Amino acid sequence: METPTLGLCLSAIRPLHDALDVINGKWKLQILVAIRTGHQRFREMERSIPGISSKVLAKELKDLEMHLLIKRTVHEGPPVQVSYEASPYAATLDPVIFALRDWGTKHREKVMGQEASA
Amino acid sequence: METPTLGLCLSAIRPLHDALDVINGKWKLQILVAIRTGHQRFREMERSIPGISSKVLAKELKDLEMHLLIKRTVHEGPPVQVSYEASPYAATLDPVIFALRDWGTKHREKVMGQEASA
Repeated sequence: METPTLGLCLSAIRPLHDALDVINGKWKLQILVAIRTGHQRFREMERSIPGISSKVLAKELKDLEMHLLIKRTVHEGPPVQVSYEASPYAATLDPVIFALRDWGTKHREKVMGQEASA
Repeated sequence: METPTLGLCLSAIRPLHDALDVINGKWKLQILVAIRTGHQRFREMERSIPGISSKVLAKELKDLEMHLLIKRTVHEGPPVQVSYEASPYAATLDPVIFALRDWGTKHREKVMGQEASA
C-alpha cells in the first residue's frame, strides 16, 4: 500500500466532511438516482424507493434542493402538479457515485469471499 | 448533462448501498484517515478526532475491522498495548476518498459562491 502523506490526508478531511454532509444517510443518492431515471413526481419516487416515508422523502428533497442538486417545478393546473428534476450540477456527483458503486461491488465480493472461506 | 441510462442507474443502487453502509456516518473515513496518518493507538485517535466519544470510537473500530479495513494487534506487555493499522485493502477506498474530497472542495465553492451572490 502506498502510504499517504500526512498533508494530503489532513487536507482531505474538511472537504470529505462537506461531501459526506451532503450525500450522507441512506436516501439522498437513491433519490437522485430515482429522479435521474425518470421518477420525477413525489408519489412515483416514494413508490420506487423501498422503505422511504413521505416525511423523510419531503425533507430529503428539500435538502437536495438547498444543495442545488435538484430543481423543483410547480406546474400551474388545474390540478397543480409538482415535479423534480436533477440539476445539471447533479452530474458533477457522477465520479463519486461511480467510485462508490465500483468499490461497493468489489467489497461485496471480498467480504462474501472471506465468509465463504472462513 | 448526459442522461444516464436506466440500466446503469438501477445497477448502481445495490453496490452504492453496500459502499455507503460501510463508510456512512460521520466517523469511519475520519478514523481511517487518522490511522493512516499515524494515530494508531486508541487514545491518540480519540484526541485527533474532535467530538468523538470513546464508546463510538470503539464501535466504529470494530466495524472497520469486520469490514477488513483495519487490523488490530495486541502487543504482549507488560503493559499490554493495542494498536491499529490500515489493512492493504483499505487503500482500495482511495478512489472513493479522492472523489469525495474533490467534490466536497468544489461544492463548498459552489454553495458559498451562490450565498455570496444571493
